[in-house]
Amino acid sequence: MPTLVLVRHGQSQWNLENRFTGWWDVDLTDAGVEEARGAGRALAAAGHEFDCCFTSLQTRAIRTLHLALHEMGSLWLPVTKHWRLNERHYGGLTGLNKQEMRDKVGDEQVHIWRRSFDIPPPPMDADSPYRMEGDRRYQDIEIPETESLKDTIARVLPYFDEAIAPSLKSGKRVLISAHGNSLRALVKHLSNISDDEITGLEIPTGKPIVYELDDDLGEISRDYVEGV
Amino acid sequence: MPTLVLVRHGQSQWNLENRFTGWWDVDLTDAGVEEARGAGRALAAAGHEFDCCFTSLQTRAIRTLHLALHEMGSLWLPVTKHWRLNERHYGGLTGLNKQEMRDKVGDEQVHIWRRSFDIPPPPMDADSPYRMEGDRRYQDIEIPETESLKDTIARVLPYFDEAIAPSLKSGKRVLISAHGNSLRALVKHLSNISDDEITGLEIPTGKPIVYELDDDLGEISRDYVEGV
Repeated sequence: MPTLVLVRHGQSQWNLENRFTGWWDVDLTDAGVEEARGAGRALAAAGHEFDCCFTSLQTRAIRTLHLALHEMGSLWLPVTKHWRLNERHYGGLTGLNKQEMRDKVGDEQVHIWRRSFDIPPPPMDADSPYRMEGDRRYQDIEIPETESLKDTIARVLPYFDEAIAPSLKSGKRVLISAHGNSLRALVKHLSNISDDEITGLEIPTGKPIVYELDDDLGEISRDYVEGV
Repeated sequence: MPTLVLVRHGQSQWNLENRFTGWWDVDLTDAGVEEARGAGRALAAAGHEFDCCFTSLQTRAIRTLHLALHEMGSLWLPVTKHWRLNERHYGGLTGLNKQEMRDKVGDEQVHIWRRSFDIPPPPMDADSPYRMEGDRRYQDIEIPETESLKDTIARVLPYFDEAIAPSLKSGKRVLISAHGNSLRALVKHLSNISDDEITGLEIPTGKPIVYELDDDLGEISRDYVEGV
């Protein structure tokens, strides 16, 4: 039976500072490191083994994967990294403190940007210090100016279909370490959740989500593994 | 100009305990972690950037790579892991304290096993606690019973030719994190060192070796980067 486990990275420095992060490459805090290790220990304690892993091009998700695999004695597993698993691009909100933003434009507008399905934040300013055009890891792609959750889903799912689904269908047990919104895209798809509902679904950190799937990769069960 | 950088993993728990390690999957000590970070800082300080990385299936080399890449802000780079970059298999010596071994069979025999080019140690006992037949990472290969340096070279170089050389020839800057003897194999090949000489060549830990290569992957220069 195909098994897919999703892990959301733990606390990053900007989670701690309550800032919109998106594609900016913020590292884990010490607490985030411990969450990642706890996720690995929980998966090992529950007897999970994997055949291959996928993650984004962002340090916080990659380190979460490495720290969890280290706890599982499974650092030797093949890992594929791809920008399509990156966090949603928060456009002009990137780097802003969430409270400052609320004070500036009002709670409701912030809520719309953060939780609406298809309304993206304003695009990133041309002179934003958080533009990533010079970053080698994105040299072959066009970096988004901003993304709604719908936009994020639209670039995550083709990668799932092309790169991840074939591994699952061939019987491989797959571990994905990624971000709140790239994982929402996968959960929406696998669990067939509506546009309205998915925006309110919180993906927990440090608490792996275990999918048992049928041969067509439809959900048989979705469970959570508590961190230890 | 093709550039290849070799990093030997830092101190492992069994280096510290003076035991023959080979294919047994011993982790880094805290000192080994710091060596790996130092190698990454040194490469970053020297302005090195990479396009892809290779390592073994052994935790100590994989973690060394991850720790170095983290210091370089380059965890997003593609990493390929392969058993052919593993340490030499020490056969029946695996797990033995080097001093105990010397006391038992004499300095000269130990020296022969450790430093001869083509005399392997005795094969691993059928009931050795260090046999790895049950280890999933080696399920598709026949694990060696023992290896001379010559044997190690004979399984490292085909992988270099098939997997690593094409990347170098296409202009990619390649970083390899591996082990004393799998790196000796590469240095012997690239620097055209004789069978007699290679056994005495020490590959430093935490001190990356930088090769500038010509288009046929012959050595133009070989330099060392001091850890910081």
